[in-house]
Amino acid sequence: MDKTRITGTTRLYALLGSPVAHSLSPAIHNASFAHLGVDAAYVVFDVDAGQTGAAVAALRTLGIAGFNLTMPCKKAVIEHLDRLSPAAELIGAVNTVNVEADGTLTGHNTDGAGMIRALAEAGAALEGCRLLVLGAGGAARAIIAQAGLDGAAQVLVAKRPGATFAQAADDVARLAAATDTPMGLVDFTDPEAMAEACARADIIINATPIGMGENNPESPLAPERIREGQFVADAVYHPRRTALLASAAEARAMPVEGVGMLLWQGLIAEEIWLADELAARSLAPDPAPILPLLA
Amino acid sequence: MDKTRITGTTRLYALLGSPVAHSLSPAIHNASFAHLGVDAAYVVFDVDAGQTGAAVAALRTLGIAGFNLTMPCKKAVIEHLDRLSPAAELIGAVNTVNVEADGTLTGHNTDGAGMIRALAEAGAALEGCRLLVLGAGGAARAIIAQAGLDGAAQVLVAKRPGATFAQAADDVARLAAATDTPMGLVDFTDPEAMAEACARADIIINATPIGMGENNPESPLAPERIREGQFVADAVYHPRRTALLASAAEARAMPVEGVGMLLWQGLIAEEIWLADELAARSLAPDPAPILPLLA
Repeated sequence: MDKTRITGTTRLYALLGSPVAHSLSPAIHNASFAHLGVDAAYVVFDVDAGQTGAAVAALRTLGIAGFNLTMPCKKAVIEHLDRLSPAAELIGAVNTVNVEADGTLTGHNTDGAGMIRALAEAGAALEGCRLLVLGAGGAARAIIAQAGLDGAAQVLVAKRPGATFAQAADDVARLAAATDTPMGLVDFTDPEAMAEACARADIIINATPIGMGENNPESPLAPERIREGQFVADAVYHPRRTALLASAAEARAMPVEGVGMLLWQGLIAEEIWLADELAARSLAPDPAPILPLLA
Repeated sequence: MDKTRITGTTRLYALLGSPVAHSLSPAIHNASFAHLGVDAAYVVFDVDAGQTGAAVAALRTLGIAGFNLTMPCKKAVIEHLDRLSPAAELIGAVNTVNVEADGTLTGHNTDGAGMIRALAEAGAALEGCRLLVLGAGGAARAIIAQAGLDGAAQVLVAKRPGATFAQAADDVARLAAATDTPMGLVDFTDPEAMAEACARADIIINATPIGMGENNPESPLAPERIREGQFVADAVYHPRRTALLASAAEARAMPVEGVGMLLWQGLIAEEIWLADELAARSLAPDPAPILPLLA
């Protein structure tokens, strides 16, 4: 039988969130399941934050094999789960839920791990590195926490001043303490501080939405901030080659596209969901056949 | 549909029942959706009778586009629906639920209609026909009621004597009155009554499980009961060519395989689910590309 065919034995995985009509997750997971020869299919359910609990109960009732969450359900889901992974606990948001053998639901967050894996694939080992993260929102938080857990030497976070700056400073201090990693908050609008932070960073990651959208010339960093040999990663994946990444290439830095983070947050979710089956078959999710689908 | 073509806009249809692991419904519907170019996928959820209400609530929460029911959920689902079609009401069982535009759930039963459509495809027009149905269980009941609704001239039902015979006689009388169709119950073990019933029937339908299973030589009728020119249909679809149908072919009667009923109960469900879309595109579900998948 065609391994892509859905039958009565096909396990179901799902994405909850809203909007989800243009999510790339079905393409990623269905292609990966087919490539791995795993009898599973991935669908989406459009669910807003207030319906998250009912939707999780519905998925439990129907015996779903596992699920992902995207905006606006990543925080709302937490109270409906049985356990959290250390990363999900620290980040305060869940993008992946594993249904354990006993039916309990464990929340994970693979967003930060996805970015770190994408960097690793590009040759950037995080351990011992100095990281500069632009932005302090949800994506940034996942990356900062995971970087602390995974052994970064230092994490600086750049954020515009404003009403939430003090709160962000507290958050960063809390993540630093929890992961025993030196971290600090930098004023994104302070040219000197940013010049120094950029110059000292081994890896710069844009976790703001700046640069999103076709033919968007905006970049979160002036081109002269980027130096040869640095890794410059973008969480923005549309377009694949943002203005920031074009600057990085021009400066002979190593650009790391946002599709890598997108793809790896999904494949790491599969590593969690399919751990036993993949181990038994000595298999691992493979980005190569999937990347072309995200063009 | 091929699961690798599932996207964020793909509508989901499902089968509830237990066991469902070997159901052919995913093959039927996914192939038909693909053939029709309908952006929809069909999956199964293993649900027992007591979980039916919770599962229906779960499907409502998740915004499912429509669903089917099989054993043991066909009766249990009724109290969780908003309306029933006349056939479902009469049969007292639902195999198809349509989600109306306003979110209400209407229960249908396409099992009897599936058999009648399969007979029509084989050249047997039901209207004005004398029908002999072997068995008085769930499948038989769906066929008997639909035959009454669709204008059969007479329906005889053959059943073994026993504790439920009187109840079956009452049921048949009730279906006869409700559809204004002459109907009667015949003792399956009475050779004379069966000989006469068979001789007078234009269409004989086996709705007992007799003959089910590979290389099963059992037939519900002795070969000499079948005469040239009759239509002899089987609700049993495994094997496709039962001993009964082999006898029918030998007697130059017209054998009608059970896969036809199986296939058409599914395609008629699609006619209900997709009515507007199919009308707008002047399309109808097509059995031709699907039948080979059920071999």
